Amino acid sequence: MSLVAPVIVHKISGEGLIESPDLLAVEEPLEIRLGFGPVADRQQRPVSVTMRTPGHDEELAMGFLFTEGIIQKPTDIVSCRHCVQDAHKEGNVLRVELHPDVVIDWSRLERNTFTSSSCGLCGKATIDAVMALTPGPIAGNFSVDPAILHALPERVRQTQRAFAYTGGIHAAALFDASGTLLIVREDIGRHNALDKLIGAAFWQNWLPMSEFGIFLSGRIGVELVQKSWRAGVPMLAAVGAPSSLAVQMAKEAHMTLAGFVRDSRFNLYCEPVRILSQISHE
Amino acid sequence: MSLVAPVIVHKISGEGLIESPDLLAVEEPLEIRLGFGPVADRQQRPVSVTMRTPGHDEELAMGFLFTEGIIQKPTDIVSCRHCVQDAHKEGNVLRVELHPDVVIDWSRLERNTFTSSSCGLCGKATIDAVMALTPGPIAGNFSVDPAILHALPERVRQTQRAFAYTGGIHAAALFDASGTLLIVREDIGRHNALDKLIGAAFWQNWLPMSEFGIFLSGRIGVELVQKSWRAGVPMLAAVGAPSSLAVQMAKEAHMTLAGFVRDSRFNLYCEPVRILSQISHE
Repeated sequence: MSLVAPVIVHKISGEGLIESPDLLAVEEPLEIRLGFGPVADRQQRPVSVTMRTPGHDEELAMGFLFTEGIIQKPTDIVSCRHCVQDAHKEGNVLRVELHPDVVIDWSRLERNTFTSSSCGLCGKATIDAVMALTPGPIAGNFSVDPAILHALPERVRQTQRAFAYTGGIHAAALFDASGTLLIVREDIGRHNALDKLIGAAFWQNWLPMSEFGIFLSGRIGVELVQKSWRAGVPMLAAVGAPSSLAVQMAKEAHMTLAGFVRDSRFNLYCEPVRILSQISHE
Repeated sequence: MSLVAPVIVHKISGEGLIESPDLLAVEEPLEIRLGFGPVADRQQRPVSVTMRTPGHDEELAMGFLFTEGIIQKPTDIVSCRHCVQDAHKEGNVLRVELHPDVVIDWSRLERNTFTSSSCGLCGKATIDAVMALTPGPIAGNFSVDPAILHALPERVRQTQRAFAYTGGIHAAALFDASGTLLIVREDIGRHNALDKLIGAAFWQNWLPMSEFGIFLSGRIGVELVQKSWRAGVPMLAAVGAPSSLAVQMAKEAHMTLAGFVRDSRFNLYCEPVRILSQISHE
């Protein structure tokens, strides 16, 4: 497995445009399963599903199990290996066999475990599960001038009360084709900031939001694309980079995805027409 | 509830030092509980615990429930309000009453739900639960010259294969008092990068790591402090800002916490002596 995946992007700088190969950080789900109990009565149970970059999966599992208080020392682990089940899921399920003497406090684990949103055990299953929740690809005529995107980071920052003070909080902002900001929400968690924004729009009965874009202050993981797709938003723009799976899902959604939106530049990963149609009008 | 919390920090710039008031983004757990089912047989069930910045909690809950496919339209919600149970937890439990006709697909919810690591329903309970897992505050004589910290961002970046290509992946790096990097791990998720690092050290029987510091490329949420404390690490340094709860937990752990480590500056939030002792030697 590779840490990076190749992609062709449209790079916009000011009003200029080039097509260029680029690389994305790979994102795939990993399920950690425990084998535990006495030899005569061996059991297994999944304890975590997390979206991760493949590689060093055994260390990820051991670090997780140790910091959650399940294992205490290397000899608590008998073996640690990937399950091979089918071609799609290969490499995304890790089975950790614990020493028969290890006693697990399941009640604490259930309280503490954090599992990321993940609908399947491979990128394709993740996307399929989200597709089952949506009415299909996003249509509509929403399009935006590049200058609107260039202005977004500064415009959003001006509204961010808490960021100005702390420098440590994420924002999600809803914008229209003229660049007007309709909702801005802040949270220490990117997913929470987006949930707050979508919740506000939901409550005002604005969904699906086919005439709006969403701007995010951070990186774009697949879960943020999933949430935006559910809300029917045709454009997601972010200061940070998208993951491989985020781009894959945005393609299925027919969603315009812009990353590295800063310093009058950005990259377009899919459905560039909602931006490029505005450039060709010049 | 406030988005920001005041704190006194030591600001280091080069070898210079001032004490200064500062503000942190607030982080607290939120539990979302659903009330559901026919009026005659009403039930309730928690569906998510997430670390969030307080404020707009109703929107957060609605956005979460909508994007997870549990609710479809505003009329699916009968009411949405904070439970008042005791002074500590106040504001951290939100009960959403669904319309009796809403049918919940629990099997899908269990697959999709992402709950953050959270041991309790308030910051204090979160810290108490972690303390139960640890042998107590971190001791030892580990200390580091400010110049070591100033050099870390560039040094770590040089080792980051995937970041160089994608600009979109987090790193966690283990360093010693001379600034030597012993382990560097990358992942799209900050928690995963740290789990990989701690897992690698765990497997080599290096825990507790009282003679090392950990450097992170992102922001410092409470869960990252928790993991580092479990690993016995006396110093956590990061390019980004810490949350209020991260600082609170680092204080309990007697862990040195440095944020905004970049451009030859950083802020110290607690246990500054492991850095300042080196300055006063000059």
